[in-house]
Amino acid sequence: MLDRSEFKRAQRRALEFFAKARIALTPEETKSIEVADFGLGDLAHTGLEVVVYINTERYCAKEIVIFPRQTCPEHYHPDVNEEPGKQETFRCRWGIVYLYVPGEQTPRPHSVPPPGKEKYYTVYHEILLRPGQQYTLPPRTLHWFQGGVKGAVVSEFSSRSTDDNDVFTDPSIERKTRIKP
Amino acid sequence: MLDRSEFKRAQRRALEFFAKARIALTPEETKSIEVADFGLGDLAHTGLEVVVYINTERYCAKEIVIFPRQTCPEHYHPDVNEEPGKQETFRCRWGIVYLYVPGEQTPRPHSVPPPGKEKYYTVYHEILLRPGQQYTLPPRTLHWFQGGVKGAVVSEFSSRSTDDNDVFTDPSIERKTRIKP
Repeated sequence: MLDRSEFKRAQRRALEFFAKARIALTPEETKSIEVADFGLGDLAHTGLEVVVYINTERYCAKEIVIFPRQTCPEHYHPDVNEEPGKQETFRCRWGIVYLYVPGEQTPRPHSVPPPGKEKYYTVYHEILLRPGQQYTLPPRTLHWFQGGVKGAVVSEFSSRSTDDNDVFTDPSIERKTRIKP
Repeated sequence: MLDRSEFKRAQRRALEFFAKARIALTPEETKSIEVADFGLGDLAHTGLEVVVYINTERYCAKEIVIFPRQTCPEHYHPDVNEEPGKQETFRCRWGIVYLYVPGEQTPRPHSVPPPGKEKYYTVYHEILLRPGQQYTLPPRTLHWFQGGVKGAVVSEFSSRSTDDNDVFTDPSIERKTRIKP
């Protein structure tokens, strides 16, 4: 659960990052920036700020802000009905993002999981993305990512997005953000 | 056909537009900017400069530079085998782009077709896109677009891209650019 004031503050802060990255939004997009707290109410450690540009049955494009050291928690995109799990490409536009995927554990990763949540982070092969660099995840691949000390702005290009189907390693996570009335 | 020097000049000029739009490219992308002359050898009027970020069986993302008053000629994306024609979203990142689609003819459109090519331009419903604005085309929709007086940088998000299948109104167009040896 998020306080309305906290939600609004995160939206305003996200706008500062879009401005740093020189990414133009329409007034409607500006007002409807999605703030995802993953049900944990701890945006300082776990969260994402998102503008969905387009999401059709065939493809999806989003712009994501990750605050400094904010983490998108570990999850994967399962097959849904007959459709293979979401395939996605992360392209760093501004700042640095550390992406973690299955594979050989990176000896000294740049990120640590949010405090108290260590056991829900199981993949530690680090992909470092600077502006202009990108990485494509196959469907059904566990992953998590964290913004560097200055945060990051990342484009996500993918097949259709159905966030409600995402499977998180942390069972206490809810993908839908609820705002305190 | 394009002279190699002209091709290189267009690549360098495209880089200036990516810089104006503050869009970061990797050194590899910088070297491999696609210059499309559509077989007409007249980049001043007809052409596109493109970086393909990703093109999988499911989705595609590109960044497109349109020089001032340069035109992407009228075409549509047909169904290919069992796959419906490419669906695409154009999002203006920098400058102004005028997009033309079927529908009521705009009384005084901002663009005119390249000289001598008027008869191959048949749709004149104008969509004006400024930075942050976007438009999604259904499959099989005739369209063409032209950069404004300062040119434009446009993101294209779409289903899988198979440029070779595009159907152009001008029968003399070849999608593949050939460079003079």
